[in-house]
Amino acid sequence: MTDSLNPGLEGVAVAETRLSQINGGQGNLAIRGFPIDELAGNARYEETVFLLLNGRLPTSTEYADFRDELSSHRQISEEVQAVLRRAAREEKPAMDALRMGVAAANLGVTEQDQGEDVRRVIAVFPTIVATYWRYRQGKEPVTPRDDLGHTANYLYMLTGEEPSEAQVAGLETYLNTVADHGLNASTFSARVVVSTGSDLVSAVTAAVGTLKGPLHGGAPGPVLEMLREVYETGDAERYVRETLDAGERLMGFGHRVYRARDPRAAVLESAAKRFYIDGGDADFFDAAQEFEDIATDLLSEHMPDRQLETNVEFYTAILLDGVGIPKDLFTATFAISRVGGWTAHALEQMDDNRLIRPSSHYVGDTQRSWTPVAER
Amino acid sequence: MTDSLNPGLEGVAVAETRLSQINGGQGNLAIRGFPIDELAGNARYEETVFLLLNGRLPTSTEYADFRDELSSHRQISEEVQAVLRRAAREEKPAMDALRMGVAAANLGVTEQDQGEDVRRVIAVFPTIVATYWRYRQGKEPVTPRDDLGHTANYLYMLTGEEPSEAQVAGLETYLNTVADHGLNASTFSARVVVSTGSDLVSAVTAAVGTLKGPLHGGAPGPVLEMLREVYETGDAERYVRETLDAGERLMGFGHRVYRARDPRAAVLESAAKRFYIDGGDADFFDAAQEFEDIATDLLSEHMPDRQLETNVEFYTAILLDGVGIPKDLFTATFAISRVGGWTAHALEQMDDNRLIRPSSHYVGDTQRSWTPVAER
Repeated sequence: MTDSLNPGLEGVAVAETRLSQINGGQGNLAIRGFPIDELAGNARYEETVFLLLNGRLPTSTEYADFRDELSSHRQISEEVQAVLRRAAREEKPAMDALRMGVAAANLGVTEQDQGEDVRRVIAVFPTIVATYWRYRQGKEPVTPRDDLGHTANYLYMLTGEEPSEAQVAGLETYLNTVADHGLNASTFSARVVVSTGSDLVSAVTAAVGTLKGPLHGGAPGPVLEMLREVYETGDAERYVRETLDAGERLMGFGHRVYRARDPRAAVLESAAKRFYIDGGDADFFDAAQEFEDIATDLLSEHMPDRQLETNVEFYTAILLDGVGIPKDLFTATFAISRVGGWTAHALEQMDDNRLIRPSSHYVGDTQRSWTPVAER
Repeated sequence: MTDSLNPGLEGVAVAETRLSQINGGQGNLAIRGFPIDELAGNARYEETVFLLLNGRLPTSTEYADFRDELSSHRQISEEVQAVLRRAAREEKPAMDALRMGVAAANLGVTEQDQGEDVRRVIAVFPTIVATYWRYRQGKEPVTPRDDLGHTANYLYMLTGEEPSEAQVAGLETYLNTVADHGLNASTFSARVVVSTGSDLVSAVTAAVGTLKGPLHGGAPGPVLEMLREVYETGDAERYVRETLDAGERLMGFGHRVYRARDPRAAVLESAAKRFYIDGGDADFFDAAQEFEDIATDLLSEHMPDRQLETNVEFYTAILLDGVGIPKDLFTATFAISRVGGWTAHALEQMDDNRLIRPSSHYVGDTQRSWTPVAER
């Protein structure tokens, strides 16, 4: 009997999960049963992670403890700092630096405690990204501040200045919104890694490398460039028409899973709107919304069967740019959020594990015979 | 329509491949059409890798060029050396050190050339493992020697002494034997990573983390401990009976894919036999063969339906121990071989790519509502 060939694994569920529920047809997403629009604007990132890991929201004591535990694990080793300094000097992409830093995240760790490992991995992500970024700017890294929450401290480590409440609220909403999303490719790779009995650091390192790919986590930067360019020229319709007529993909629209508008787009749109109207560049935001309207109209006109709706990257680009995240760190900031989902999925896989081992069809040469090199 | 649940991905082929062909029922394995027993004893590891990457064996000029290109890329950066020194000082497992080193393998690299990236990644594996090991021994790393082939140089970097021809031949056979093996879990994770458009270093780093798990690459060390223990006591039958009566898994036997004897076991057995008879510990080798006979007899008696035959780990342990690889480096040495397959699979995936994104079944809570922390 031959195994059936399914290169994208469409229609195959690899796990039962209690973490997030996607309804691609209706455009719904819930985290542990909480609709994403309700959770994302209300929670602190620490609450979302606690929810993912424990299945319920923390009490106020648990929240304070969890926040302290995370903040106590923000340090990275000097060897990792040196690696990040060099990566920055050589202008390696942020996701390369993050991969290097995360791969060595258990340096300096002596005790073996799974809960602690989870918290440490989540806690060091912002430190790795910010340390790399400071070196990229020719500056020294900023020491993390224990009195700041996870989100505020990330912004603080990037700039050395305490962020505004509006910045923190905007970024917090983003980090909550993209923390988990079913079995996307990076989450899946984390589960493949632990399915062999391997460890959390290996799983999360693999996930970072997977998220690096533009087909998964790499498009918000280009979306921003596109929106800025169109904002300068002021002719959104011409840009969209030319892109579609050239048969090119329009960035920020379409998703493998959603046939309706990505529910995360709405959450991020509201957050961005709040942020831009409270002292941001309101004109740019209006132009972006206009671009979305034009694009969705023209997309349904050009490809009426495809249902290409606004995806999460579109408002990610606008919101992250607004709160002060450099474009080069968009995907790494996505990782800073998604590591919450990765660790929760890794633990779920460990709890009820089966080695994930598909097969392949051999379509190559057969029955060849060895010839010594002198006779070739 | 609900996606069907298949947690192990059994019966699902995720790729068409021209690299290796496994016949699990008959116990056959061919690399690019060459039967493993014919290839493994004859080829240099460089020839096997060239074959995997190019689909044919190299001419003598191509072989010399490829060997030179690999040997010119053996250096690692001082930042990675420092990371490895610390990993060794903290007695982190070799696979952790390898993950850290490989994740940073593109430090110091300025040009972007895919063929060169492939060769560099393969070339640095032995350097990373040997550097870590030297530090573990409280010694300084040994500078690689350009005049030695890939296999001989690895042994040289471990000890600082030029290995014997018999050692090189034994290890070369091992490296050829396990270089590729269909879509095992680590190879699969490498393909998942590049399926998002990510890069080779990220893919190979993920694969290292996947191979670390004992369900995949982690058992040859314990097999050796078992064989040494049984050799001391001299009572193989009692050991096997007690293990099986306790309902425990007997290490070195059984494989997810093979229902016959793993064809790699035969190749490694011959190589080990040659090595042990030419001046090794022949008594230990005889005892191991006797253990295999007793174990397979008792396994078929205890579990007549299971067909648990000798797997690749059994003779891996004996051969690697014989040629002088420390037990703590068995899995890392497996990786030094398998990186040839990982890179070839990554390139194959890039050539004909589709994002690998399975789904999950949601089985958790639904329709929950947000409560502020003060009210919980």
